Amino acid sequence: MIKTDILIIGAGPTGLFTVFEAGLLKLKTHLIDALPQPGGQCSEIYPKKPIYDIPAFPEILAGDLVNNLMEQIKPFEPGFTLGERAETIEKLDDGTFIVTTNKGTQHHAPVVAIAGGLGSFEPRKPPIPNIADFEDKGVAYIIRDPEVYRDKKVIIAGGGDSALDWSIYLADVAAEVTLVHRRNEFRGALDSVEKVSELSKLGKIELVTEAEVKGLYGNDNLEGVTIKYNSGEEIQREADNFIPLFGLSPKLGPIANWGLEIEKNAIKVDNSYDYATNIPGIYAIGDVNTYPGKLKLILSGFHEAAIMCQSAYQRINPGKKYVMKYTTVGGVQGFDGTVKAAKKEVVKSIV
Amino acid sequence: MIKTDILIIGAGPTGLFTVFEAGLLKLKTHLIDALPQPGGQCSEIYPKKPIYDIPAFPEILAGDLVNNLMEQIKPFEPGFTLGERAETIEKLDDGTFIVTTNKGTQHHAPVVAIAGGLGSFEPRKPPIPNIADFEDKGVAYIIRDPEVYRDKKVIIAGGGDSALDWSIYLADVAAEVTLVHRRNEFRGALDSVEKVSELSKLGKIELVTEAEVKGLYGNDNLEGVTIKYNSGEEIQREADNFIPLFGLSPKLGPIANWGLEIEKNAIKVDNSYDYATNIPGIYAIGDVNTYPGKLKLILSGFHEAAIMCQSAYQRINPGKKYVMKYTTVGGVQGFDGTVKAAKKEVVKSIV
Ligand SMILES: Cc1cc2nc3c(=O)[nH]c(=O)nc-3n(C[C@H](O)[C@H](O)[C@H](O)COP(=O)(O)OP(=O)(O)OC[C@H]3O[C@@H](n4cnc5c(N)ncnc54)[C@H](O)[C@@H]3O)c2cc1C
Ligand SMILES: Cc1cc2nc3c(=O)[nH]c(=O)nc-3n(C[C@H](O)[C@H](O)[C@H](O)COP(=O)(O)OP(=O)(O)OC[C@H]3O[C@@H](n4cnc5c(N)ncnc54)[C@H](O)[C@@H]3O)c2cc1C
Repeated sequence: MIKTDILIIGAGPTGLFTVFEAGLLKLKTHLIDALPQPGGQCSEIYPKKPIYDIPAFPEILAGDLVNNLMEQIKPFEPGFTLGERAETIEKLDDGTFIVTTNKGTQHHAPVVAIAGGLGSFEPRKPPIPNIADFEDKGVAYIIRDPEVYRDKKVIIAGGGDSALDWSIYLADVAAEVTLVHRRNEFRGALDSVEKVSELSKLGKIELVTEAEVKGLYGNDNLEGVTIKYNSGEEIQREADNFIPLFGLSPKLGPIANWGLEIEKNAIKVDNSYDYATNIPGIYAIGDVNTYPGKLKLILSGFHEAAIMCQSAYQRINPGKKYVMKYTTVGGVQGFDGTVKAAKKEVVKSIV
Repeated sequence: MIKTDILIIGAGPTGLFTVFEAGLLKLKTHLIDALPQPGGQCSEIYPKKPIYDIPAFPEILAGDLVNNLMEQIKPFEPGFTLGERAETIEKLDDGTFIVTTNKGTQHHAPVVAIAGGLGSFEPRKPPIPNIADFEDKGVAYIIRDPEVYRDKKVIIAGGGDSALDWSIYLADVAAEVTLVHRRNEFRGALDSVEKVSELSKLGKIELVTEAEVKGLYGNDNLEGVTIKYNSGEEIQREADNFIPLFGLSPKLGPIANWGLEIEKNAIKVDNSYDYATNIPGIYAIGDVNTYPGKLKLILSGFHEAAIMCQSAYQRINPGKKYVMKYTTVGGVQGFDGTVKAAKKEVVKSIV
C-alpha cells in the first residue's frame, strides 16, 4: 500500500504544480496517471507546440513547460504510479481514502486531489471484431517499452505523428515494420513525414496505404492480420504485433462513478473557497473541474492548486495555524535535503 | 483625455498580465502607476531577489519576471501613465469612468481594473517640521531623473540599498554627494556597501554617520541642512538637494475613498464569479483584493486577471459571444501587427 498526504490523480500541469504547493506546506504527494509519462495533454497531445499565455513566458513549448515543472517539484520527491488508471475509491471510517488502479495498485491518503483534466486518455480502437481477444497478446494501443518489439514483425496503423514517429523508431528495433494508412497523405511534422518516406525507400519501413487492417488471426497470440485495400482487394500478412495508433481520446472514466457531482462532463467544485467537491476530503482542480466562469487554461490549475493545498493542510493538520511565508523570504526546503534561499542582505560597517 | 477599453490602476505583475489577457480578447489597455517604473513590489522592493513559486520557473529574479511580462505584453501596445497616482474616479451617466491622477491627467474607460497591490507606494518622510515647504524645491523622496542633480550639492539620507545605490550613481553626476546615516552599519548588497566605502576613500562620497538631518533652511529653494550627530553636536552644510531614501510604504490611499467595500485594508470582490467589486464596471485583482481563502501571491493575480477580462469583455460587448481559442491553436495577434502562431501540421503525400 502506497501512503501519502495528498494523493493526486492526474500528472498534467495542474497535478505537477500541486506537488510544489503541497511541498511548501511540508505535505507529501503521490501521483497516479493512466499515461506512461507525466505532463497530461501537454506531453501527450502537443509537446512540440508553443503556448503563449503562460504568465512570464512570451513563448514556451508544451514539453518544456512540463520539463520545467518536473524540475521545480524535484526537491519534494513526489511518488508516481504511471501507466495505471485510478479505478475505484473507498472512504474508510477515519475519513481517509483508498484508491485502487486498474492494475490493482493501492494508495492510501487523507486527501485526494483529482487533477484528471479531460479524463484519462483512452486509445481510439479500430472496429475489428476480435481485437479485444489479442490485447496484451500482440495488440497494444500505446507503446510503453519499445524493447518489447525487438526483432518482431510489427504492423503499425495510423496517419498522424504518433504512427510516423514510432514507425521511424521501431525501424531500428523490430525485424520488420509495416505502416498501414487509409490514405496516401500523412498528417504530421514535416521532418517525420520525410524521414518515413526515406526509410520506406531504403526498405526499412514498408508502407501500405489506401488500406486498413480489417481482421486479426492467431491461436492465443497474434500471428497475422488481414489488410483490405480501398479498392476491395484483401491480403494477409504475418505479424507478431499490431499497434493501431489512432490517437487517444479522454474520458472522465471511472471517476464519473465515485459519487461526485458531475456537470458538463466535469466535477462541480466550490470555487468560492477551496475547490472542494461534494465529498469532504476530495478536491478537483484544473481542467477536470467546473464552476461559474471557469476557464480551462493551464494558469487556472496553478492557482486552484495553491488554494486547494491550503485547505488540504487544514484538513490534515486540524487546528494548526500555518504562517505563509513568501518563497523569496522563507526559501524552499526540499524533502531531499536541498535548500533554495535568496541571498541575505549584508549588514556591514563601512566607516 | 486618454481613452482605452480597460483602465488598469497599478502596473505590478497583475496589472501587466491583464494587458495580455485583455489583448487576447482584442481589448485595449492603459496602466497608471504611482511609481516611475512598472513591476510593482517586484521592481520596487526586491528586483534582484529570486522567487521560487512562479509556476514552471524553478527560480526567477523578481526583476526578470517583470522584464518577461513586459516582453509578453509588448504586442498589445499598452499605454502607461507612470509616476502619477490615481486620485479620483467619476462615473458618467453612460456607466463609463473618468479617472484623474494627482497631476491632473484624465483617463476615460468603460471598465476599470484596480490592480493596486498593497496600495500606492508612498515615501517614508523624516520628521523634519518644515520639510513640506521644500518639496519640489530641493527635497525629493524618489529619484525620477538623475540628471536633475548634475553639478548640484546633494545630501542623501538612509542606510539601505536605495541610499547606497543612488549615492554611487550620483557620485559621477553631482558636484558633491554626502550620505548621512544614523548608524555606522549599512544594510544592503555586499558590492554596494563596498563600492560606497571605496568612493568614500576616494573623496567622491562624503560619509556622515551616527548622525541625522534635523533641519532644512533656505529662501524659497533649499539652501542647506542642519545635521545632528548622535553625540549631540550639530553642523550646518550647504545643499541644493536633500533626498531622504527611507523606503516606500504602501498605502491603499485615495482608492479607499472611491465607495468600494473595504475589508482588512483590501477591496472585497466576488471571487465566486469575476472579481467584480460592489461598483459595476470596477474590478479588483491581485494583492489589492480580498475574499475567503485569498492568497496574496503573484500566481493568484494572473488567474484573477484572466477571469476578470472575460467579464470585462461581456460588459464592453454586451450579448456578443466570445469563442475562446487556445493560444497554441489561435496564436497571438498583437495590435502592433505582429503574429505569433504555432507551426501548422503538414499534410503530405509520401507514397
Ligand atoms: C492542442 C492544445 C492546445 C492547448 N493550448 C493551450 C494554451 O495555449 N494555453 C492554455 O492555458 N491551455 C492550452 N491547452 C489546454 C491545456 O493543455 C490544459 O488546460 C491543461 O493540460 C490542463 O491541465 P490538467 O493538469 O488540469 O489536465 P491534463 O493536462 O488533461 O492532465 C490530466 C491527466 O490526468 C490523467 N487522468 C485522468 N483521469 C485519470 C484516472 N482515472 N486515472 C489516472 N490518470 C487519470 C490523464 O491521463 C492526464 O494525463 C491546450 C490543449 C490542447 C489539446
Ligand atoms: C520581499 C517580498 C518577497 C515576495 N516574495 C514572493 C514570492 O516568493 N512569491 C509570490 O508569489 N509573491 C511574493 N511576494 C508578493 C508579490 O510581490 C505580490 O503578490 C505581487 O507583487 C502582487 O502584485 P500586484 O500586481 O497585485 O501588486 P503590486 O506588485 O503591489 O503592484 C501594485 C502597483 O499599484 C500601484 N498603485 C496602487 N495604488 C495606486 C494608485 N492609486 N495610483 C497609481 N498607482 C497605484 C503601486 O504603486 C504598485 O506599483 C513578495 C513580496 C515581497 C515584498
